[in-house]
Amino acid sequence: MKRVYLDHIAATPLAPGVLEAMLPFFGERFGNVQSLHTDGQSAAEAVEEARDSVARLVNATPAEIIFTSSGSEANNLAVKGLALAQRSKGNRLVLSAVEHPSVLNAAKGLERLGFAVTLVPVDATAAVDPGAVAKALTKDTVLVSVMLANAEVGTIEPLAEIVKIAKAGGALVHTDAVAAAGNIPIDVRALGVDALSLAGDQFAGPKGAAALYLRKGVRPVPLIDGGVQESGRRAGTENVPAIIGMGKAAEWALAGLPGWGERAAKLRDRLLDELPARVPRVRVSGDRTRRLPHQASFLVEFVEGEAMLLHLDMKGIAVSSGSACSSKSLKASHVLLAMGIDHATAQGSVVFSLIDATTADDIEYVLDAFPPIIDRLRKMSPLYTQFLKESAR
Amino acid sequence: MKRVYLDHIAATPLAPGVLEAMLPFFGERFGNVQSLHTDGQSAAEAVEEARDSVARLVNATPAEIIFTSSGSEANNLAVKGLALAQRSKGNRLVLSAVEHPSVLNAAKGLERLGFAVTLVPVDATAAVDPGAVAKALTKDTVLVSVMLANAEVGTIEPLAEIVKIAKAGGALVHTDAVAAAGNIPIDVRALGVDALSLAGDQFAGPKGAAALYLRKGVRPVPLIDGGVQESGRRAGTENVPAIIGMGKAAEWALAGLPGWGERAAKLRDRLLDELPARVPRVRVSGDRTRRLPHQASFLVEFVEGEAMLLHLDMKGIAVSSGSACSSKSLKASHVLLAMGIDHATAQGSVVFSLIDATTADDIEYVLDAFPPIIDRLRKMSPLYTQFLKESAR
Repeated sequence: MKRVYLDHIAATPLAPGVLEAMLPFFGERFGNVQSLHTDGQSAAEAVEEARDSVARLVNATPAEIIFTSSGSEANNLAVKGLALAQRSKGNRLVLSAVEHPSVLNAAKGLERLGFAVTLVPVDATAAVDPGAVAKALTKDTVLVSVMLANAEVGTIEPLAEIVKIAKAGGALVHTDAVAAAGNIPIDVRALGVDALSLAGDQFAGPKGAAALYLRKGVRPVPLIDGGVQESGRRAGTENVPAIIGMGKAAEWALAGLPGWGERAAKLRDRLLDELPARVPRVRVSGDRTRRLPHQASFLVEFVEGEAMLLHLDMKGIAVSSGSACSSKSLKASHVLLAMGIDHATAQGSVVFSLIDATTADDIEYVLDAFPPIIDRLRKMSPLYTQFLKESAR
Repeated sequence: MKRVYLDHIAATPLAPGVLEAMLPFFGERFGNVQSLHTDGQSAAEAVEEARDSVARLVNATPAEIIFTSSGSEANNLAVKGLALAQRSKGNRLVLSAVEHPSVLNAAKGLERLGFAVTLVPVDATAAVDPGAVAKALTKDTVLVSVMLANAEVGTIEPLAEIVKIAKAGGALVHTDAVAAAGNIPIDVRALGVDALSLAGDQFAGPKGAAALYLRKGVRPVPLIDGGVQESGRRAGTENVPAIIGMGKAAEWALAGLPGWGERAAKLRDRLLDELPARVPRVRVSGDRTRRLPHQASFLVEFVEGEAMLLHLDMKGIAVSSGSACSSKSLKASHVLLAMGIDHATAQGSVVFSLIDATTADDIEYVLDAFPPIIDRLRKMSPLYTQFLKESAR
């Protein structure tokens, strides 16, 4: 059976050359970066090259990049680390309501330590209104965290405006760019952020390597205390092979932009246009144009996301019904609820996210496979039966 | 030139079969463990098998194992997570003075949040006196953390006794078993600990995967908040390939114990016996018998550890002068200072740690190469010249 993998937001296959770049570090270059002998230094040099590649992807300097083990760790380090570092200045965090669980729950963790959190609402497309951020800012606000783009509904946030407002208010600004980095061009200088999270596995790098950009001079309290790794900002033996892989993937992603954006957006638009045309009571979630190029998400009425996912899987199509980090929690997505979607409709979320290998044929395959699946699932739905009866009156 | 790698405590080459076990997860099994589709579930099943293998290495159940990205992260999760979870009960931590920086500095991080830390002294071999733990325990002590074995001086601590005392005092007990796990048999039930840290890269697994054993019912405040991974105890996309590699290495290590212990100890003892016999004013650091089987560490008077390390490296021999996590800090080791070694002597630390591939020939090569290096270095040392003059009087 044909397999069509459209779950980029959960995991990406490795880009060409990434595994090959990693392999020596599972072999003869296995040394510890901190070791002063030849075996260690051989690994250390390669890690610094990777740091340079990751820095270039977002227009940072290498010294501004801290490697972490995941986007979630980078988000935790930014949110907790920057809040705790500024404790004497104030105790308030301002976040958008559609942040990733690793940002929202990191902030919840801080509430137990005496911090207060203000969630800024979003509109029906999940866009944060910069004016709402301005209203939320108080004198005691030490950190604003608004994501660059939302994986679940694809919306790209008006971050540059939000940064201006937050900086004018004296707060540091962090952005979770995990879904965006490697998929749209990012320039930390142009954005003006103080911290930015990114993860290699969102641009065809391996799992296990992610990074936090920290503007020069911005110093968080470490999340993982210990040794001198990452200039004392993140302890733990460096995951050398994964870091090397992330560096290689960053080079590949940077070289591939904006070609990737154009190519993916064309395929994405075919999904965004055609699925609602072919299946009744399906609508696009998120913003139609300010959108990640590889992300097409929908709300399908009278059907549960998990059922769609499993039936699509039986047709060889891998998708998600939201964030991988909450896929097993079986709760309605906080992102969709924040957008004002009702609980029942929010259950019918499905996210197609394209990878580099996605072809026009793959998309046509999905467009053919999807309608009969929805038809079948709806026939099993008591809500849909009731809806049909009511419509027929 | 012959290369002799004797820096196990910094990094180990992968065990046979480990990379092969990992490779499919860089390829077709690249899915996210949290994804409900086939691609995700294929990875999820393998992660659960690895969890089972890691659990068996320390006689735990799979549900008691949380995967982390490094031993340092596991130590931070244990120390911070268990202290914060018990905040209402008390605010004191009792640690040995020779803990790894990731334990000591995690505790320092807690001091900023209102916790108090008592460091228990050690004897001249770095052994913690259980009686000293008893004396340090107060009603408000919520956590005792004493390592199972010290990587830097090789000493195995009398942990079971310490656990009994700490438990009688009502505290939870964590042990950093990063240096020990996979190298000596470990049974969490026999030890009676509530939490135990281990790292795959200390038993020929890959970097990027480590674990925290948490006895059933023991629940820390997460270090990395976010998604539902690791039962909500540690957020972040699972580093599937590294976890698979750690599982495979755990199987390999378990099968190889106690053969490894006997084989390594024989080679280690040759170093422990011969180096002090061949070079004057060299002594073994740590306990001579209650000792990691693969660890031979020495204090060489009138020579700096870093100089020894670099000169040995020129002869193809890779060693360390202490913990990799502080190798670049250029400070005298807190472990050696806690043992009562003076600052000058503590600078002359050198650690040989054997790997699976180490042969008797390698050891003889070291025994031949070491004395002339020390001789040359001492000739450059003003302290040694002065010492010789004084001795000659």
